[in-house]
Amino acid sequence: MSCAGFSTFGQKESNNERIFAAYSVYKGKAALSAEPAPPKFCKLDSGGIRVKRQGYILLSFSPAVAERKYDWQRKQIIMPFWAAIKIDTGFEELAVMIKVFALSATEVGALIALGPNGSCEFFHDPAMQTSNAGQVRKSFSIRANPDGTGYFMSLNVVNNIAKTNDRFSLPITSAEFAVMRTSFSFALPHIMGWDRYSSQVPNFKEENSTKVGLKSLSSEWDR
Amino acid sequence: MSCAGFSTFGQKESNNERIFAAYSVYKGKAALSAEPAPPKFCKLDSGGIRVKRQGYILLSFSPAVAERKYDWQRKQIIMPFWAAIKIDTGFEELAVMIKVFALSATEVGALIALGPNGSCEFFHDPAMQTSNAGQVRKSFSIRANPDGTGYFMSLNVVNNIAKTNDRFSLPITSAEFAVMRTSFSFALPHIMGWDRYSSQVPNFKEENSTKVGLKSLSSEWDR
Amino acid sequence: MSCAGFSTFGQKESNNERIFAAYSVYKGKAALSAEPAPPKFCKLDSGGIRVKRQGYILLSFSPAVAERKYDWQRKQIIMPFWAAIKIDTGFEELAVMIKVFALSATEVGALIALGPNGSCEFFHDPAMQTSNAGQVRKSFSIRANPDGTGYFMSLNVVNNIAKTNDRFSLPITSAEFAVMRTSFSFALPHIMGWDRYSSQVPNFKEENSTKVGLKSLSSEWDR
Amino acid sequence: MSCAGFSTFGQKESNNERIFAAYSVYKGKAALSAEPAPPKFCKLDSGGIRVKRQGYILLSFSPAVAERKYDWQRKQIIMPFWAAIKIDTGFEELAVMIKVFALSATEVGALIALGPNGSCEFFHDPAMQTSNAGQVRKSFSIRANPDGTGYFMSLNVVNNIAKTNDRFSLPITSAEFAVMRTSFSFALPHIMGWDRYSSQVPNFKEENSTKVGLKSLSSEWDR
Repeated sequence: MSCAGFSTFGQKESNNERIFAAYSVYKGKAALSAEPAPPKFCKLDSGGIRVKRQGYILLSFSPAVAERKYDWQRKQIIMPFWAAIKIDTGFEELAVMIKVFALSATEVGALIALGPNGSCEFFHDPAMQTSNAGQVRKSFSIRANPDGTGYFMSLNVVNNIAKTNDRFSLPITSAEFAVMRTSFSFALPHIMGWDRYSSQVPNFKEENSTKVGLKSLSSEWDR
Repeated sequence: MSCAGFSTFGQKESNNERIFAAYSVYKGKAALSAEPAPPKFCKLDSGGIRVKRQGYILLSFSPAVAERKYDWQRKQIIMPFWAAIKIDTGFEELAVMIKVFALSATEVGALIALGPNGSCEFFHDPAMQTSNAGQVRKSFSIRANPDGTGYFMSLNVVNNIAKTNDRFSLPITSAEFAVMRTSFSFALPHIMGWDRYSSQVPNFKEENSTKVGLKSLSSEWDR
Repeated sequence: MSCAGFSTFGQKESNNERIFAAYSVYKGKAALSAEPAPPKFCKLDSGGIRVKRQGYILLSFSPAVAERKYDWQRKQIIMPFWAAIKIDTGFEELAVMIKVFALSATEVGALIALGPNGSCEFFHDPAMQTSNAGQVRKSFSIRANPDGTGYFMSLNVVNNIAKTNDRFSLPITSAEFAVMRTSFSFALPHIMGWDRYSSQVPNFKEENSTKVGLKSLSSEWDR
Repeated sequence: MSCAGFSTFGQKESNNERIFAAYSVYKGKAALSAEPAPPKFCKLDSGGIRVKRQGYILLSFSPAVAERKYDWQRKQIIMPFWAAIKIDTGFEELAVMIKVFALSATEVGALIALGPNGSCEFFHDPAMQTSNAGQVRKSFSIRANPDGTGYFMSLNVVNNIAKTNDRFSLPITSAEFAVMRTSFSFALPHIMGWDRYSSQVPNFKEENSTKVGLKSLSSEWDR
């Protein structure tokens, strides 16, 4: 199904203003903040609305530069993630991405399904489908503490072009992880676009009711 | 309670546009996509709105025809499921249904309650309540991998009239299953129509308040 | 806080139409249907809206009168539950209530917390706070099957005035119970009125912003 | 990012009326009620909306003064929590706070993650960041009953200035705790402001579609 382009100019008027409501965890050496990004839709020629690009949960790491001061600036959150990845990825753009990791729906699924002793790791290539593919490897990992008191979350970025290796990591308590699990579970249907499937009651046009009245529909599983 | 017919002509104006936001899993031999379908309502003569037909979660299977290419066309998703089953089911219509399986509310309940070692299987007869009843048997099954790393989902369609036996199956990781469990749990109240029971604050008409003020209502369980 | 009475005449206009979307389970000897009822609100003299009466989940039992035919009529669902209990409870009104059981928020909590081997029982006195208090005892129980394949739900009504003892019971599969657990969990915040606490973005009046700008608020747990 | 002040005068018009829908548990010696408070937002100079102050779940304790009579008055719930803490905290204001405890998002996470044998305790200093810091210590604790039948919730307030030590505690059944877990899980994304991240379909401006049509966006995890 071909999908017509769309304008987002109208968004401001329709309450689609950018929201900043990250859940942030501040620890001695680094801080971590998480916030959802809704999907992008496009309009089908045949009518209807299709998800053009799935949403995600954006994890942002910031090293501590002093006590209770974190270096959020270098991350340049002002520039939206999807804008950054639209640009043909080169050195500068990779620098923009160095401290963020966008969890897909399935990666969110892995995180919320994690047991008290579980661990998981995801690998992203920010230069995928460019001539620099394979040169930069980002990995995000969650590992349970052996004593069951929580988890350790790490972002590792190996850049073979710039010869850099950045690592950000911080402990997450069970309580903080419970906030993530609950809020990520809440956000998951939204980043998939499933909150658009509402069971809205149709506009009943009573004058037409006898003419267009539906026959009793039997499904495969009606008994 | 008799239920008057209704028109859906008015839906387009009221933001009831068809949404395409399936969750899709792509594997070597097949792909699987899932999306919810809201219930159909009708208007009661006595006032009020009744669910005429429950919603469902539609699972669609597609065999891989080449690397990363899947045969979605044969499924004809453009034709809505309920339209397909409305037609008196014959050969052609059965062909339309061959790769889809519509999970009812209770079948969704079975799926989301599945433990890490659980399995379940559902049987549908697409020709039920027609003269071809019993000739075609569709079965959808979920089986846990012995090593606990995920599940195996299969759709099997045995058509005794056409003498065909189609089988589609693919592995589902624990993370993918967690996405399904979470999003299906989110969708379940919607396909039941329960999202319509909102606790809306009534329009308070203050001029009438002394006259029609309600007595303190005591329920059986107020103490 | 005193709570002014309110009129519900305006409800029809504001999309507050009665919804019929019960989840129903049909078994050999009886059927059971469940549907939520939102709370009733009243307007406070001091401004604001208060829950006047909590909502509930209404369970309705119907004995089978023939194969796949159930006696729903005797239950008189057309008459709303709260109207029935408002009337000073006598013989006729008790008859109205004989096949329904309204689960409070806490009783819903007990049901959704039930483990695979758990059981629970609730007792209601429909004549509570009348001169017939103690004469009629309704009890609803859920018991797990010993083999872990599901539950057994029963409603027992002992009426010492009419010298009657009515009992309705039916098996509930694990899948059906999962639908109840998920949909009751969804409905619970709604019957408590908590879906009214939305984090709506206020109307920002920019012309006033310097005058009424809030100081940075520090809570007890801001660090 | 600097955050402009805002007025809440406009709230009444936009359905932002104060809601009173606490979940209350009444026991022999005390009562406990819980209700969520949504976050406060502010408008960014750069456009967009930011959470200025996270929401919370407010726990309020009241000692029983007679059978089924509880001393709610001393708590002065009429005065909103954030107003109380805005005032430079002195003796009188501390008295206002003596029976309430505001659970942050992470503390709510700890509560909902509590296993059947778990326990947790949180400490707040209502005079934090004032000259009286450290003089008053409030602690809220949840402890599982050894027999697994529920929990015990306590609020302890030690005031070294007034030389007072107040303690309120009451038993919570497993069913009551399930209501709290479910409703607090529901409320958690709301007190974080995450319910504002909706995947609203943008206003499609078809006249512009060819000019501003987006290129196919590939994310790191699109395959």
